[in-house]
Amino acid sequence: MGLTEPSDSEALTPSGHGPDEASEVRSSASSTLMFAPWQSAVDEGFWHRMASFKLETQRLDEHPVPVSGFFAPCSHPQIPSHLQLLEESLPPDPGGSSSTSHSAVIGNRNKCPAPGTLYNTNTLESFTGMDRPSLLKSAALQIWEDIHSGKAEEDSNVLNRFLLISFADLKKWSFLYWFAFPAIVLTPSATVSSCTPVSMAFSEEESTGIRGACSEWRSTETTASSPFFLLHFTSDGAVNARPIRDWKVANEEGGKVISAYYDPYNRTYPGWPLRNFLALAVVRWEVTELRVLCYREKRGFLDPELSLVVDVELPKIPEWKVQGFIPKGVGWELNSRGKARPRIVHLAASMDPERAANQAADLNLKLMRWRLLPSLNIPLLSSTKCLLLGAGTLGCHVARNLLPWGIRHITFVDYGKVAMSNPCRQSLYNLEDCLNGGKPKAEAAVASLKRIGPVEARGLCMSIPMPGHSVGPAEVDSVLADCSRLKELVDEHDIVFLLTDTRESRWLPTLLCAAANKVAINAALGFDSFLVMRHGAGPAFLEPEISNSTEDEISAPTYDGRLGCYFCNDIVAPLDSTANRTLDQQCTVTRPGLAPLGAALAVEMAVSLLHHPRRIFAPAAQAVAITDATVEALGILPHQVRGFLAHYTQLVVTGAAFDKCTACSSIVVDEFKKRGMEFVLEVLNRPNYLEDLTGLTEMLAATQGLTLDWDDEDDEM
Amino acid sequence: MGLTEPSDSEALTPSGHGPDEASEVRSSASSTLMFAPWQSAVDEGFWHRMASFKLETQRLDEHPVPVSGFFAPCSHPQIPSHLQLLEESLPPDPGGSSSTSHSAVIGNRNKCPAPGTLYNTNTLESFTGMDRPSLLKSAALQIWEDIHSGKAEEDSNVLNRFLLISFADLKKWSFLYWFAFPAIVLTPSATVSSCTPVSMAFSEEESTGIRGACSEWRSTETTASSPFFLLHFTSDGAVNARPIRDWKVANEEGGKVISAYYDPYNRTYPGWPLRNFLALAVVRWEVTELRVLCYREKRGFLDPELSLVVDVELPKIPEWKVQGFIPKGVGWELNSRGKARPRIVHLAASMDPERAANQAADLNLKLMRWRLLPSLNIPLLSSTKCLLLGAGTLGCHVARNLLPWGIRHITFVDYGKVAMSNPCRQSLYNLEDCLNGGKPKAEAAVASLKRIGPVEARGLCMSIPMPGHSVGPAEVDSVLADCSRLKELVDEHDIVFLLTDTRESRWLPTLLCAAANKVAINAALGFDSFLVMRHGAGPAFLEPEISNSTEDEISAPTYDGRLGCYFCNDIVAPLDSTANRTLDQQCTVTRPGLAPLGAALAVEMAVSLLHHPRRIFAPAAQAVAITDATVEALGILPHQVRGFLAHYTQLVVTGAAFDKCTACSSIVVDEFKKRGMEFVLEVLNRPNYLEDLTGLTEMLAATQGLTLDWDDEDDEM
Repeated sequence: MGLTEPSDSEALTPSGHGPDEASEVRSSASSTLMFAPWQSAVDEGFWHRMASFKLETQRLDEHPVPVSGFFAPCSHPQIPSHLQLLEESLPPDPGGSSSTSHSAVIGNRNKCPAPGTLYNTNTLESFTGMDRPSLLKSAALQIWEDIHSGKAEEDSNVLNRFLLISFADLKKWSFLYWFAFPAIVLTPSATVSSCTPVSMAFSEEESTGIRGACSEWRSTETTASSPFFLLHFTSDGAVNARPIRDWKVANEEGGKVISAYYDPYNRTYPGWPLRNFLALAVVRWEVTELRVLCYREKRGFLDPELSLVVDVELPKIPEWKVQGFIPKGVGWELNSRGKARPRIVHLAASMDPERAANQAADLNLKLMRWRLLPSLNIPLLSSTKCLLLGAGTLGCHVARNLLPWGIRHITFVDYGKVAMSNPCRQSLYNLEDCLNGGKPKAEAAVASLKRIGPVEARGLCMSIPMPGHSVGPAEVDSVLADCSRLKELVDEHDIVFLLTDTRESRWLPTLLCAAANKVAINAALGFDSFLVMRHGAGPAFLEPEISNSTEDEISAPTYDGRLGCYFCNDIVAPLDSTANRTLDQQCTVTRPGLAPLGAALAVEMAVSLLHHPRRIFAPAAQAVAITDATVEALGILPHQVRGFLAHYTQLVVTGAAFDKCTACSSIVVDEFKKRGMEFVLEVLNRPNYLEDLTGLTEMLAATQGLTLDWDDEDDEM
Repeated sequence: MGLTEPSDSEALTPSGHGPDEASEVRSSASSTLMFAPWQSAVDEGFWHRMASFKLETQRLDEHPVPVSGFFAPCSHPQIPSHLQLLEESLPPDPGGSSSTSHSAVIGNRNKCPAPGTLYNTNTLESFTGMDRPSLLKSAALQIWEDIHSGKAEEDSNVLNRFLLISFADLKKWSFLYWFAFPAIVLTPSATVSSCTPVSMAFSEEESTGIRGACSEWRSTETTASSPFFLLHFTSDGAVNARPIRDWKVANEEGGKVISAYYDPYNRTYPGWPLRNFLALAVVRWEVTELRVLCYREKRGFLDPELSLVVDVELPKIPEWKVQGFIPKGVGWELNSRGKARPRIVHLAASMDPERAANQAADLNLKLMRWRLLPSLNIPLLSSTKCLLLGAGTLGCHVARNLLPWGIRHITFVDYGKVAMSNPCRQSLYNLEDCLNGGKPKAEAAVASLKRIGPVEARGLCMSIPMPGHSVGPAEVDSVLADCSRLKELVDEHDIVFLLTDTRESRWLPTLLCAAANKVAINAALGFDSFLVMRHGAGPAFLEPEISNSTEDEISAPTYDGRLGCYFCNDIVAPLDSTANRTLDQQCTVTRPGLAPLGAALAVEMAVSLLHHPRRIFAPAAQAVAITDATVEALGILPHQVRGFLAHYTQLVVTGAAFDKCTACSSIVVDEFKKRGMEFVLEVLNRPNYLEDLTGLTEMLAATQGLTLDWDDEDDEM
């Protein structure tokens, strides 16, 4: 165990956990007074809070941050009290997710606060390069000024002021840190003329009085967390505990006044808090002798054996009276091996894996908010529910791209099983998913996602009813159940990704999204080209008024009509395209690079849309020259992006909604709303029904008539 | 067990594996002759060969393909012989990987060939829609014509002609198939006047003669695989086996002539091959009585108990003489449940997982060759060795994109361990790779790839020496070892992907590639933009002459000078950029969609380059309008692609090599070749050395002088 004299150098010698009794010598009369330094203890909760504070609030800011340390008088003969840093040592999360209320601290007798200042640096280099002597000096000076101004007598906690410098490597979850407990050095030193247990220093009566006074001080809410106080032995034999600002008054009232403080230390030396208190006595009270009770507890009451009474002789220090004098300060804590080096804690190994995964998954996102994308709305993303129709090549890639954007709710719909040829392209599956006929994809995709990160994933092994795939009487019930299930799923989610491998399987989801005004993001692959698009709003929906945000959005000429869906360009209804397909048409024969491209852009478009104030009503942005910055932090929000791999090119395209669209037009949506699943069933069974309903049949006939006329004219020429 | 009369309908009733003795009645004199149908047996090897034949040779072609069936006389009283289809039943692989030589079949007494025709359809619909009656009719007609022309007497195997129609679902590894064994129907039917075992039909002496004659026929290479033959009992008591074309000659020579054939059947009826033989006897020999020996074996010799002697009475069928008469044919095999339906075999479950994975991994690639990309060079891709420097976000995505292109040799170099924040973006890792401090990335990436598909992957946990990261005396040996190891790796591989997260870590690999003229593909990410480029050829290398391919390449105006590397645009040497980085600068803070985009394009570019006749010397293609087709099937091969996520745009860029480049210029490469690792060490340790060496220092000084002059002029104005 190390003790320090007031004249010691900057470094302290804190005691280890096993005190070294051999070096502990009861001080003889008039020997130099020595102090046992503070011992710091940082709770894991503090580091976690610090991590989120750094990531979400502080970010790149290196300004000092106020923190609260907590301590209590020593209450165990074997163990000194520590200055603890807890989760609530840092300012609470603005979101209010902090589990402990800050107000709970006030008046808590076991959590006497010590005001601290945290210097958390951005880089290891700035940590190691910190000017620690200056930091300590200015902290000591602040205490000095609080003593001179009388502030320390009003709020004695400031005498326990401390510093914490740190560097948090939040990628590896290791924290490098160093505490300082600044103490003003008396020169010459104070000496001790007597140091005895309370039980030996007072009469039985006095002891009883002291015990009662301390107990009252400790149990009164307004005084419980004031670590320095006076004990006034009145002339009528009573003992009263009083605040230190009453020093003069009490002395004037007569009787005897001694000082007392919550002493964290557990052995025959006073603990560190006494140091600045002695400075106060010299400066403010101008005394040369001081009797101090080092208050220590046993089961909540003064422990007369553990607590000490120390008679201190104080020097006169005339220069302290000089305006602008700066006293010497000491106080950097040694590390656990007694070296003047910072301490380090590695939390990665001890962290609950799930918690660690949660923290880690959002790390990059939170870092994006520091500098590059302060407007990134992480809570919005983490609460958005995504429905992925299709868990094949596109579905796997889309899910993988959603995770790093902080999307946490993903539902897969797929009726297929994982085949041997899938894992190479379908990035959520392994060969072992293919054994014994293959696991259902929806199931395997969920399991795979859960191995990657924290996610609430669900998988439904069901097929999507498709126009042209007619429904026999025996299947009607199960197909209608699938339709209803799909409708429920669309209603339950915020974004629907259309990632199936046929055109017709996109029809019902497109209709359901149009009817419910849900965001639909569509990705489709050719052999070396792809289409990524967001469907427009449903035909029956008006945009709600939004306040003054329109001015922000004009980044480029935009199209502000209702945007089209996947079927708006077509003048034929979707039909069964799976019949009579050769093997290469059944398999996704696309250039391998295509799916990752399409899936990545689909997710980027969805995230941009989520951040657009007009959401599903957002107008279609046109292409902007790359030399022009985009107004939106996430870039333009186009309607469609068409990619051409052979040309290394992408095109931004806009397509208006078509009033005869077989999926999203008012006619179709209204009919669906009127007749529900009966309407859907008719579409599945009657190939031409949609074309008749929307007027496409008529339009087509008229067009063909027109063409015939031309042919006739040609013939006559 | 089913037997069929000649007059039965198209469908046959083959016997099951357990013959139904109850229904088997020894035929009485002059009853209608019945035949036991062929039983087909397809070896798994045939399906595998058929799969690769379909994928690699036949592709979309639906033309009939000749196949060979194999059979032998029945040799076991409990089990009839089957008509077998084996791996060698199909034409051999042009690559010659077929394990069994075709020529081995000729004269193999246990593999008497039967000529067949395979109709393998592209779709299930065309399988079920096949006109089976017509197919059978034309096959029967072919036999008929071979009988009439005398061809059947020259090569009696044609009487056993068969058909096989099939549809192969190579995604699921299931095969739907149906055999037909066309038999010409005699109307009216033949009748049987006697049917007895050989042992009862002949004298001891005759039996001995028959046994000897058959044995000679069966053991002579030229006759062993001729399934029909004659036994000539000469007037001097000898028995000779003779080809059927000798019918008339032998009869004219006197004595007795009976017919014989390899009978696959094992019971008291003759097997199917007799049917067409009887038609031949009617047409060619115009006989009304025929004694036939149904030859069956025991331990390689005639089995006198199992073999039958049948006396057949044949009808006269005058209309068969009429030119152009078309006889009735029967012969579609029933399935194993006795139904006139196709059979199906599912191989997926029984396949060796490794073999299945290998097959499946290349399925999509092979299908690409059918229609969309016939020039795709799969052997080239599978033999290309890729070195991935960096197994982080880009490294994982690049590896995942290489797999579906059929790349099988992948080596990772990375010194990092998998951290908790990695799996969300680094698509080869799971959370369990992060436990206990994290697995080395290079190791975890290899393990992950092997779970996905067949790949020969290696991982090296080593760091890449970097300029500006100076090397202390104690580290020199290990750094030099890393340099040498990296050089070896570059030499051993065909393509080097630069996927690390700092600029300076790309310097040494760039230099090594330039010195060895290796293809370097570089991908680098910003926050929302990326660069993908291929480095130009090394400065000391001349392009080898290539024959007449230049005309094919002019798809767009191209740049044909030496192309630049990653460092060619820079006028400062790479330096330590890792010091003093804040957390967001240490982590890959990029938009999540960026890495999949960059990685996909890097791999597409590499694959295009591999297919370019000029490889590393390929000129830089310029952007082409998407309305213009590209000459190369895989599209243009640019020098650089820059992507801008916020703009949904990509730019094709070309940059010439810079003669003062710090990585790929002649000065640097020559110095490296001269001084080797000593040179590298100097670069690592002396920040300005590269700039001095290349003349950048001088150039910079000159430029700055110029700027100063301008400033002065400004001042004077």
